[in-house]
Formats: sequence, C-alpha cells, structure tokens
Amino acid sequence: MTPVVATVIGDPCGIGPEVVLKALADGQGRRDARTLLIGSRAALEKTRAACGIDIALRAVDTAAAARFEPGVIDVLDAFALDPADVVFGQASAACGEAVLHWLDTAERLGRAGTVQATIMAPIDSTALRLTGRLEDLDDLQPAGSWLLRVSGGLRVVPIAEHVLMRDVPATVTQASVLTLLRVLAGTLERFGLRRPRIAVAGLNPHAMGPEEREQLRPAIAQARADGIDARGPVSPDAVFRQCIEGRHDAVVSMYHDQGQIAVKTAVFEGACSIYIGLPYVHLSIPHGSAYDIAGKGIAQHQSMAAALRTAASLAAGHGFPGAPAGQH
Amino acid sequence: MTPVVATVIGDPCGIGPEVVLKALADGQGRRDARTLLIGSRAALEKTRAACGIDIALRAVDTAAAARFEPGVIDVLDAFALDPADVVFGQASAACGEAVLHWLDTAERLGRAGTVQATIMAPIDSTALRLTGRLEDLDDLQPAGSWLLRVSGGLRVVPIAEHVLMRDVPATVTQASVLTLLRVLAGTLERFGLRRPRIAVAGLNPHAMGPEEREQLRPAIAQARADGIDARGPVSPDAVFRQCIEGRHDAVVSMYHDQGQIAVKTAVFEGACSIYIGLPYVHLSIPHGSAYDIAGKGIAQHQSMAAALRTAASLAAGHGFPGAPAGQH
Repeated sequence: MTPVVATVIGDPCGIGPEVVLKALADGQGRRDARTLLIGSRAALEKTRAACGIDIALRAVDTAAAARFEPGVIDVLDAFALDPADVVFGQASAACGEAVLHWLDTAERLGRAGTVQATIMAPIDSTALRLTGRLEDLDDLQPAGSWLLRVSGGLRVVPIAEHVLMRDVPATVTQASVLTLLRVLAGTLERFGLRRPRIAVAGLNPHAMGPEEREQLRPAIAQARADGIDARGPVSPDAVFRQCIEGRHDAVVSMYHDQGQIAVKTAVFEGACSIYIGLPYVHLSIPHGSAYDIAGKGIAQHQSMAAALRTAASLAAGHGFPGAPAGQH
Repeated sequence: MTPVVATVIGDPCGIGPEVVLKALADGQGRRDARTLLIGSRAALEKTRAACGIDIALRAVDTAAAARFEPGVIDVLDAFALDPADVVFGQASAACGEAVLHWLDTAERLGRAGTVQATIMAPIDSTALRLTGRLEDLDDLQPAGSWLLRVSGGLRVVPIAEHVLMRDVPATVTQASVLTLLRVLAGTLERFGLRRPRIAVAGLNPHAMGPEEREQLRPAIAQARADGIDARGPVSPDAVFRQCIEGRHDAVVSMYHDQGQIAVKTAVFEGACSIYIGLPYVHLSIPHGSAYDIAGKGIAQHQSMAAALRTAASLAAGHGFPGAPAGQH
C-alpha cells in the first residue's frame, strides 16, 4: 500500500508553504506516496499566488476525506486561522498557535496509523514563543523519540539532545546506549536496511576512558548478544568519516555537538532530521523559516523535495534514497 | 633572509625518508627555503636506492656546516645509527632512539634560532615505546606549545589535548583561553596574517552555558581590549564551517574532539599540524609511518610536499600557502 505522507506546511509567514508547494509542483514525493498537507488552505493560496506556483489545492476537514487525486493536493485545514494574521515576514501568536495545532494533528494521525509519515516544514521559534505555550524548540520533539540526522552517507543520533557538557558524562550509561541501539536497529530495519551496521562513538578522545570500559563496551556486547551489528566504541574523531564512506549505516553519538559538528562541517545536499522511536516516520527540514525572503518566490526547495522523497522511501521500507553504492 | 627548514626524516623503517626525498626531488620546498635534513644518511641512501629516487645527499656534522647547494641536500647526521638496525617495516629500539635524538636536535636548533622551521616526518609509536623513554606520543609535544591543525581553510587549536570529557569543563578557564588567544594571535601575525580573526568555540550546545558566561566571554573581552580580533563564543556546531568558508582565520576549541571531529570529517588535501607557542615553526605530518608499504616506492608524498611549502611560507612570514581568496 502506497504510504500517506502528511506535511505540516510550517509557519505561514515564512518560506514553509512556498518550499512545500514548489516541491510538490515539481512532482517530488508524489510518485511513491499519497500526499496530504496539514495547514491553512487560505495561507497556501496566498503563497501560491505571491510566488506564482502552478498547483491545485482542495481543503478537507478530516484525513479520511482526502482523495489523493492526481493534480490536486488535499489540505487538511481544521484550524480556523484568520488569513489576516498571515503577513509574510511577521511573527504572530495566531500563526504559532496554528502551527502547534497542525503538529499535534500530524502526531495524532501518525500514532494512529492513519498516515505513515509526517514532515515538519520550517517553523518559526519567535511565533511559537509568542503563544506562551512553548519555552524551547526541544519541546516540539515527540515524547519517547530521538533525533537522527541524515546528511549524505552520514546518519547520526545522540543519546540525548541539549545537555551541558558538565552533565554529559552522567548521561552516558549502559542503559541509555543500549535502549537507543535497540530502537535504532529496529527503526533502520523497518526503513528497509537489512541488519544495519551501527557504530557507537566513544565519549573520550580515541574512545579511551572509564565510560568506554564501564558503560559503552557492556552496552555494545549486550546489543550484539541481541543480534544487533553494533560496533565500537569507535574514536569520535574517526567514526563520522567512516560512516560517510559507507563503513557504517549509522552512528550513535554521546552528545549533541559530537554529531552536529560532523553534520554541519561536512555539508551534503538533501540533509534532513528524522525522529525515531515513533510508530511512524517523522522528518524535519534543517533550515529555518527565512522570514526575510518569505513570499518572494526565491526560496530553494531542494531540502523539502529530498524530505518528501526520503519520507516516502522510508515509510515504504525502501531504504534511504540515493544511498551510495555499498551502503544500505 | 631565506629561512632554513630542517626536516627530521622520521622513522627510517617507515615511509618517512621516502616521502621526504620524493618531495624534495620534486623541488617542493626548495625554492623558498634552505633545506636541511636531520637523520641518518645511510638510511636515506637505502631508501633512495630501494625507491629509485633521483637526489644527491651529503652528510654534515653540524647545522653550521650545511652549504645549501643546488642539487645536493645536506643531512645533519650526528647520531651513530647502525644501518643494520634499519629494516623496512620492522620497529626497533635503535631507530626509536635515533628519532628521539633527531627530534631533540631539531628542537634545540629551532629554539636557538639556527633554523626557522622544523618538520617531523612520520614517526612510529611502537619503535618509540621500545626505547622505554616515551610513554605517550603526547610527550613528543614541545613544552609550552599548543597544536594547531590546518586543513583547507580550517585552522583549529584546542586549549588542551587529551583530557577525559568529565575533566574538560574544569580546563575551560578565562586564563587558559586568554593565554591561547594571545599566543595564537601573535603566532598568526608572525606567520604573515594581518590582525587575524580568531573565533572562540563555545563549550556547550549553541554556546549557551555557565562556562560561556563566566569564562569565555570575559576572556574574549580581555583579548579584544588587547587589540585582538577575538570573536564568540560561537556555537560549536557552526564555527568550523564558518572557518572553512573564510569568515575566521582560526578557531580556538575547548577540547580535543571538538576540533578533531571537524578536521577529520571534512577532509582537505595538504593537511598538517603546527606546534605554536615556540620561537620557530614546527610542523608534523598527519599520517603514520605505514610500515606495510615502507621501501616499496609507492608512498604518496603530497602531505610532505604541502608541509615543506607551508613551513617555508610561514617561516618567511608569507602566510598560509593556497589560502582561499578572501582569507588571509
């Protein structure tokens, strides 16, 4: 069954709606998936007109009402966003509220199995904070999930997100690493990778320290006993290049910057982030809402196009699109 | 005055002598510098014959006796290494002793101002350990120096080398950062960079934490009061890409892997490491002695050639060779 990929259009005052519509107008993500948008049809029409995008939209009240007809994109428009609140480049609490509602809707549909993948187009932290309902963007992370970054052949997920460095060693436990290894191995198998090869980065230089001996080695040994192809601990300054070169399918990292320095220093096109640990595929786009160029028709939609292709491929169990030869 | 660049030939049983001779036979580093080798002439002749390298060598007993004549490379050969101890691919205590002697000689000549730059060709940790005089390769680092890694436009030096992550936060002090900022700024100016732009990486994700407030900001403020163009603290996952793109001339990093993950994940040709804080330029080559291919004539000498060019250019105050446009 062709998976349904639901895309939250992002902050309507930013470039989210533009990159979504452009990617769909290009035909991206429409071959291998049934496409649903979650957002305001009026805001999308406004962007469509401002940016001159040739695409037809139809509003539906429930996901079940979507018809997935060729040439017409269904928009689940179930939050009464006043079009007057949508001003390109201006953060508003109303749009922040709308985005939070749409994200909740996407998560609900994903957890219920109504859709097999969801994508979060660029949102805006200022608008979200204006609602008074969100302190930190980390709060958007669905409960019980980890964030896998994908960039070229590099795929890396940390055991925890934003932790002060002084508190990092305490988070490196046999239990935290083993739990993530199990979740990641199961996720990658569902994505279509056969017996994924997962490297565990060390915490310390050259992976030599007490945490490697006391926490990482036992976790890796247990994972291997479970049948998981877990390797390491590998020297943190070597493991990411090895992954780029196809020697591992993914890396478990010990702290936020360990993986993010690799991802953001060695830049590849079509990067995205995937929340794992959920019963559905959930992707986000690695760029912001770019208020300064919203509504001008000049935003690049390659990242969104890659996200649509990736979501469809993973939800169908066909693996990562465009993975290098020799890599799953 | 043309600087004298003295190269320690590295472990004679590895590829060090081969890459040194090949780079010099190519004419690399001989235009802008007066070249001196420190090592065993017999070992070099053995490599020259085995690898078929067309170059003439002459042994001298002291650096003052070097003549720097065109077509003949002076070899300071003041350690009685028995040629019988030089077997390609076999670590020996005798060769380890020789390397330690040659490195001491290079440091002495550098500190005395007899030579303006020194290069360490690939050494072998097994041979060095066999001497019983070296526990850790870190012990080869000259006292009072820091190790600046150079790779493409990326130049990064950590406040300390191999420290367990649990001990890292305590090393991030206003004093350690300010000391390194001053040394680095002075070094880069002597290298030929006018008012170098130095970014300080944060310790914590997005450079937001107590160490940034209490240690890094005061250090940067004091450096700026001294006239140094110090910036930051910059988010650790952004600062290295910024440096590659030419927005900074160098980055001060807070721990070993922070910079090494960037350097070893985004690979550029001609990478080298420079010990700073010394009155002379001291470079090392970022690859090993490759015993498995020693004496076969198949070792790549591009890294050594780049090191020779870099040492000559920096010692002459001409900046980094091949720096991208817009960067010093």
